[in-house]
Amino acid sequence: MFRIATWGESHGGGVGVTIEGCPPGLALAEPDIQAELDRRRPGQSVLTTPRAEADRCEILSGTFEGRTLGTPIAVLVRNEDARPGAYADFARVFRPSHADYTYLAKYGLRTWQGGGRASARETIGRVAAGAVARKVLAEACGVEVLAWVDRVFDVDAKVDPASVTRAAVEATPVRCPDPDAAARMTRRIEDARNDGDSLGGVVRCVARSVPPGWGDPVFDKLDADLAKALMSIPACKGVEVGSGFEGTRLTGAAHNDAFYLEGGRVRTRTNRSGGIQGGISNGEDILVAAAFKPTATISRPQETVDEDGHEVTLRAKGRHDPCVLPRAVPIVEAMVALVLCDHHLVQRGQCGR
Amino acid sequence: MFRIATWGESHGGGVGVTIEGCPPGLALAEPDIQAELDRRRPGQSVLTTPRAEADRCEILSGTFEGRTLGTPIAVLVRNEDARPGAYADFARVFRPSHADYTYLAKYGLRTWQGGGRASARETIGRVAAGAVARKVLAEACGVEVLAWVDRVFDVDAKVDPASVTRAAVEATPVRCPDPDAAARMTRRIEDARNDGDSLGGVVRCVARSVPPGWGDPVFDKLDADLAKALMSIPACKGVEVGSGFEGTRLTGAAHNDAFYLEGGRVRTRTNRSGGIQGGISNGEDILVAAAFKPTATISRPQETVDEDGHEVTLRAKGRHDPCVLPRAVPIVEAMVALVLCDHHLVQRGQCGR
Amino acid sequence: MFRIATWGESHGGGVGVTIEGCPPGLALAEPDIQAELDRRRPGQSVLTTPRAEADRCEILSGTFEGRTLGTPIAVLVRNEDARPGAYADFARVFRPSHADYTYLAKYGLRTWQGGGRASARETIGRVAAGAVARKVLAEACGVEVLAWVDRVFDVDAKVDPASVTRAAVEATPVRCPDPDAAARMTRRIEDARNDGDSLGGVVRCVARSVPPGWGDPVFDKLDADLAKALMSIPACKGVEVGSGFEGTRLTGAAHNDAFYLEGGRVRTRTNRSGGIQGGISNGEDILVAAAFKPTATISRPQETVDEDGHEVTLRAKGRHDPCVLPRAVPIVEAMVALVLCDHHLVQRGQCGR
Amino acid sequence: MFRIATWGESHGGGVGVTIEGCPPGLALAEPDIQAELDRRRPGQSVLTTPRAEADRCEILSGTFEGRTLGTPIAVLVRNEDARPGAYADFARVFRPSHADYTYLAKYGLRTWQGGGRASARETIGRVAAGAVARKVLAEACGVEVLAWVDRVFDVDAKVDPASVTRAAVEATPVRCPDPDAAARMTRRIEDARNDGDSLGGVVRCVARSVPPGWGDPVFDKLDADLAKALMSIPACKGVEVGSGFEGTRLTGAAHNDAFYLEGGRVRTRTNRSGGIQGGISNGEDILVAAAFKPTATISRPQETVDEDGHEVTLRAKGRHDPCVLPRAVPIVEAMVALVLCDHHLVQRGQCGR
Repeated sequence: MFRIATWGESHGGGVGVTIEGCPPGLALAEPDIQAELDRRRPGQSVLTTPRAEADRCEILSGTFEGRTLGTPIAVLVRNEDARPGAYADFARVFRPSHADYTYLAKYGLRTWQGGGRASARETIGRVAAGAVARKVLAEACGVEVLAWVDRVFDVDAKVDPASVTRAAVEATPVRCPDPDAAARMTRRIEDARNDGDSLGGVVRCVARSVPPGWGDPVFDKLDADLAKALMSIPACKGVEVGSGFEGTRLTGAAHNDAFYLEGGRVRTRTNRSGGIQGGISNGEDILVAAAFKPTATISRPQETVDEDGHEVTLRAKGRHDPCVLPRAVPIVEAMVALVLCDHHLVQRGQCGR
Repeated sequence: MFRIATWGESHGGGVGVTIEGCPPGLALAEPDIQAELDRRRPGQSVLTTPRAEADRCEILSGTFEGRTLGTPIAVLVRNEDARPGAYADFARVFRPSHADYTYLAKYGLRTWQGGGRASARETIGRVAAGAVARKVLAEACGVEVLAWVDRVFDVDAKVDPASVTRAAVEATPVRCPDPDAAARMTRRIEDARNDGDSLGGVVRCVARSVPPGWGDPVFDKLDADLAKALMSIPACKGVEVGSGFEGTRLTGAAHNDAFYLEGGRVRTRTNRSGGIQGGISNGEDILVAAAFKPTATISRPQETVDEDGHEVTLRAKGRHDPCVLPRAVPIVEAMVALVLCDHHLVQRGQCGR
Repeated sequence: MFRIATWGESHGGGVGVTIEGCPPGLALAEPDIQAELDRRRPGQSVLTTPRAEADRCEILSGTFEGRTLGTPIAVLVRNEDARPGAYADFARVFRPSHADYTYLAKYGLRTWQGGGRASARETIGRVAAGAVARKVLAEACGVEVLAWVDRVFDVDAKVDPASVTRAAVEATPVRCPDPDAAARMTRRIEDARNDGDSLGGVVRCVARSVPPGWGDPVFDKLDADLAKALMSIPACKGVEVGSGFEGTRLTGAAHNDAFYLEGGRVRTRTNRSGGIQGGISNGEDILVAAAFKPTATISRPQETVDEDGHEVTLRAKGRHDPCVLPRAVPIVEAMVALVLCDHHLVQRGQCGR
Repeated sequence: MFRIATWGESHGGGVGVTIEGCPPGLALAEPDIQAELDRRRPGQSVLTTPRAEADRCEILSGTFEGRTLGTPIAVLVRNEDARPGAYADFARVFRPSHADYTYLAKYGLRTWQGGGRASARETIGRVAAGAVARKVLAEACGVEVLAWVDRVFDVDAKVDPASVTRAAVEATPVRCPDPDAAARMTRRIEDARNDGDSLGGVVRCVARSVPPGWGDPVFDKLDADLAKALMSIPACKGVEVGSGFEGTRLTGAAHNDAFYLEGGRVRTRTNRSGGIQGGISNGEDILVAAAFKPTATISRPQETVDEDGHEVTLRAKGRHDPCVLPRAVPIVEAMVALVLCDHHLVQRGQCGR
């Protein structure tokens, strides 16, 4: 019901998204979207890639006098700082753990300029659409979606999902609301950059005030759609809902979430279900996590192969993030919001509420 | 392109699946499907629920003289051993960590007989469709999909994904190909049953001989679709591809999969990517894992709430599995095969190979 | 949102349909569906094929205690009177204007028993699903869908779409509510049967009480979806909405539907738009028509070709309808109801009403 | 498989389309698309609206060095000549037989500037995508799609679908390949303009060299998809395939297309099936027709209603086409090409050819 289609490569005219199914009458203008794009864009701090693009968005359609029309909303962000020369040296080389080889295998040709469609610039469209989804959710049900960096490499944060705030997340460039952990994460990332190396970690996300009843019972379970949405983010290698992998180390008696009544409302005493039971929201906080591998782009020499069938050594010089986690935070929020918004509209259509 | 729709509750006429998009001319008859259903059905061993249904399948359409026609294949399995009386005692009680409450919240009514649509019987249709997908994959490209129990509670198995065989998996009722671990897992499960408790764990799966080039680059990444498919299995709370959560504890230099040439073919020296790069298969083994929480049905008394707004104590008497992992193995294989088969046909359509 | 998938061939275990997205809580039992199937089935009168199947339906899932659960509703009708021997004589012959040749061209193999998937038996699933859609529409908005035979060959009926009733339609076996025309149509059909020939004609359909606002503005216009739905009925070769082809013989000044107010409600003085403007319902009666070619199965000898590459003469002996129009009436109603029901749910989802 | 999404209103930043599923490696640049847009745009001749927009297209993504990448192709056309002042006079008035009232009924708000999303400018995206589809079809199978104006009001053309050429169609501004009829049509249109009135008519289209086997047998029949595609064009009120409505005036013996062999290839002696049997192409020319009502915008005073609940008289002054038929020709071709291209890719995916 709330459908998005993104397009765009790191070279070419730009990147963008078309959003179909957005309810009419929603207040929407460029600044609503720009605010989220600014959180995603490179060059925000020393921790991220120095690619200095403003990433200015333009709403091309679907609004009139500051309100959505119900028709498709197209958003465009022009490419500005494309420097193909920076990639020319390894134009025919498959960068390890990148998509160069698989794109060629799939399509029979590829663009070597900055990753093409596999570039993280593609996520601009998602973040733009996520900004719209968040406004829909906030207006309809007061839903709030909030993510943060929960671990970088071996540095774990201590964060209470029930009380963490966006202000706390945004207080540090690393987007970790635990200030001690944030400081250690920052040092780890700077060390990795100095080593020509890179780091991964875990982003967690909570969605609050989701009413009970969202989600489909079988293939389109709310958690299944969230898993797909998160796994589709570049560099994501794992997804958890609620207790996740750790929950398998409890017995059923310890793991089950007991129901009780709170002012007539059905609640659970614990939330190992992560707010989802049988694929459907139960009214508790939605809790998910995503594991991001260390960035594939590193400055160290690497063994690899080129398109001409030679084994070669790659010495990359392109701009890159030593750690994508801080910039992944708004992307995770966007993907969670997109899934929730879709299920919200489906539920209203099928069940009338 | 390869689309399935399942239907059915634990009560009522039965459960089934319709498969659309299966290529024509494939040899297919009931025994191909029955063999997989027999691996999924209850009552196989002391480790599983004693519900004693034969789960006989009938192919209602889509084949002629032992070959698929290209038209929808409908498969029906009748319900036989429905004993609604066994559920009458807690007809109006929300079982903790089950879908009783969320179904009522979503639909405004629910069936209390054995879980209804949330019953694990729903997965019969998936396993039936998965059997067809596996035949398509095997004929077209020699793809083999193989899953096993890799951990139960705190018992880890040692398994080499590159060499594990189906015979080794099927050698023990717990479907763990490491015999020592299998023996310990079995004891753990029997202990849990005796305690009225339940256990969870991890199933891993490998898909071999998948050619490079399957998968879409953005939302329908091969790993994203696998994550959704696995997370849609009842009781799944986490999904990994390749190095997963553990991979985030390596730096990029240690994590990247170096390319090399093997007889002219591009290979990777390690497989932390799990056979997927940029959402597209790279020709290495596809590696995924799924975390299953401990079964929500336990025999111990539990605090909960009923439909009439009372806090009550639930003392369940229904039949149940103390550990779903062994029976989850064929379901995991089915879901992986379904995703691969779909991407195989999409790739053939879009790229002509 | 309201999605159906049908399956089944004229041979094999049966035919059926799965309905996804039906709102929960709707009163539904087999007789609701059977009543419509009885209008579709062969052997109702001398005008239709003597194939004597009861076409008994069974609801396999999706209901509980007489109400829909919101989960998929599967309906099964067994094949009973399959007499493959009747088709053996022309097993390898392409019947002219049938789908024998195109199925073989598409799939590389085909079943020759009674038309296989191209058999009109496939429409059983549509009529079953249409019965459910009509109940949803009637309960939600009082929508009524009513079709009739408007022309057979050269016999035109005089029917006022605004006042025609189902009783008048069902009063004659030919389902034409103009009794004089019905009598002449009946004679024409009997003559055609005696000649070993067949006739086509036009079915018209009105949907009343559709509220304004249903339909999507571009590709999924309400009229576009209706056109697809009608054209997908076997033997349909043309579709009209509102003034259709005849409307092109008026100028704009004569064709436009002037708006006026009736008790505060916006109405149109004429209804050449057929209740749809810009792809969206305007609150007036929805008016559509479908042209059905003469039945391809005739008893006269016909020139054709066989699978072995020979030119041959076909002398058919199978059972057939000399005119499908009377039986097409419930199918047209079903297809119109399915489209309307889907747009009803989409509108409720997207626009909240 | 070949999916398009259009966006854009007559006001705002522009209109455009995103094309997903286009095969990689196709030669494609802006002139390929511009040539078709130039056929669609206003101001080509005295017969069409004087709105003088160049409608310059820009390919924003999906190509590299003149070839398609297999990734989404986004095409943008800026709005240039938007003159909202021209519409201010009837900003709150429902234009008869336009979509003003239905958009307001659906969405609760609307833009009154030039029709918004209901403007014919929306079809720019379709024509752009159709240009890509035609290139895919031409390269893959040599398919040619060709439409022409077959009737304006009461002026019928004599055209042989088997031999008509694009040069003959483009020889007159009215796009009718019968020069006598074209001259009379032109006069009729000029008379209508002088009267402040408008005319409709019929566009026919042939698709040549479509191989047998394209199309799905039930809901997504090739003819059903064509019917939807054509009916979705603004002002279309009727669709025919092959013999259409006139075919219902023949008996089965006269209507059936006899098969014969031509150099080993199965052919039909007549083509009343319009190249489609059982929803699947049979290798003969695909033949379709679309009826377009007279343009709703006329200069004469009309009775209507405004948003404030008053009955008013509308005296329109906006620019308009007295007859949309000539400009509908490239739109019809585009829609036919889009449907064929989709089925081509589906067939290659499912059946491997």
